[in-house]
Amino acid sequence: MAPASTTRRSDCPISSALEVVGDRWTLLLIRDLIFGGARTFKDFLASREGIATNILSDRLGRLVDLGVMNSERDPADGRVIVYRLTPKGMDLVPVLMELSVWGARHENGQAPEGVLEAWQSDRDGFLRWARSRQDRT
Amino acid sequence: MAPASTTRRSDCPISSALEVVGDRWTLLLIRDLIFGGARTFKDFLASREGIATNILSDRLGRLVDLGVMNSERDPADGRVIVYRLTPKGMDLVPVLMELSVWGARHENGQAPEGVLEAWQSDRDGFLRWARSRQDRT
Repeated sequence: MAPASTTRRSDCPISSALEVVGDRWTLLLIRDLIFGGARTFKDFLASREGIATNILSDRLGRLVDLGVMNSERDPADGRVIVYRLTPKGMDLVPVLMELSVWGARHENGQAPEGVLEAWQSDRDGFLRWARSRQDRT
Repeated sequence: MAPASTTRRSDCPISSALEVVGDRWTLLLIRDLIFGGARTFKDFLASREGIATNILSDRLGRLVDLGVMNSERDPADGRVIVYRLTPKGMDLVPVLMELSVWGARHENGQAPEGVLEAWQSDRDGFLRWARSRQDRT
């Protein structure tokens, strides 16, 4: 099935990207999937920013509908749904990393040691590493 | 005066960046300043996504308070306020460009011809060009 599409306000690629991810919780969920090892509803709920269950439920459903994540039952426990990023979702890593560079530079955000340097010195290598992290789990 | 700070939910640099720009209108206003030549309230209001006046007014004030834009009276017409990006605001160009790359690839967004190629082949040159555009006006 083709992913659901958003109602498009303009053809601008920035605007069309923001129709999908222009909400802070959405990008934080993607961060938790890539960098925090989050896989389940419970994992996302434990995130340090304290997302509310109704917002979490809404955003996960929306990201699956839009083809950014997929969801499947955990083979080890059929009652648990496991979320993973699709290749479309993995392509958001550069957006997250540039936000991270900016937040560290201008808003006193603290990135784990070496991460921003790794991104800035070898973007392609960093993207391969991010992809392999997800594949490993 | 130091820029106002946001209430921080975590030290994560992605989260702290999103406290400032994690709202689609905010990033669209910055886009309009850098790429659309917008300078005044009226210019922003004319943007194709159709921002409401109350949201526009709120977001411009917030971005000035947070040090992303500054505002001054137009020397040619003292009744008009002119907005410009600060260096902190200009540092958001990579975030906008990575959103643009993603929106063009995955959401059928249409970037002006050559722009994404220019960004991807020479990021530093692109950033100099973006800065010079703002300095020229």
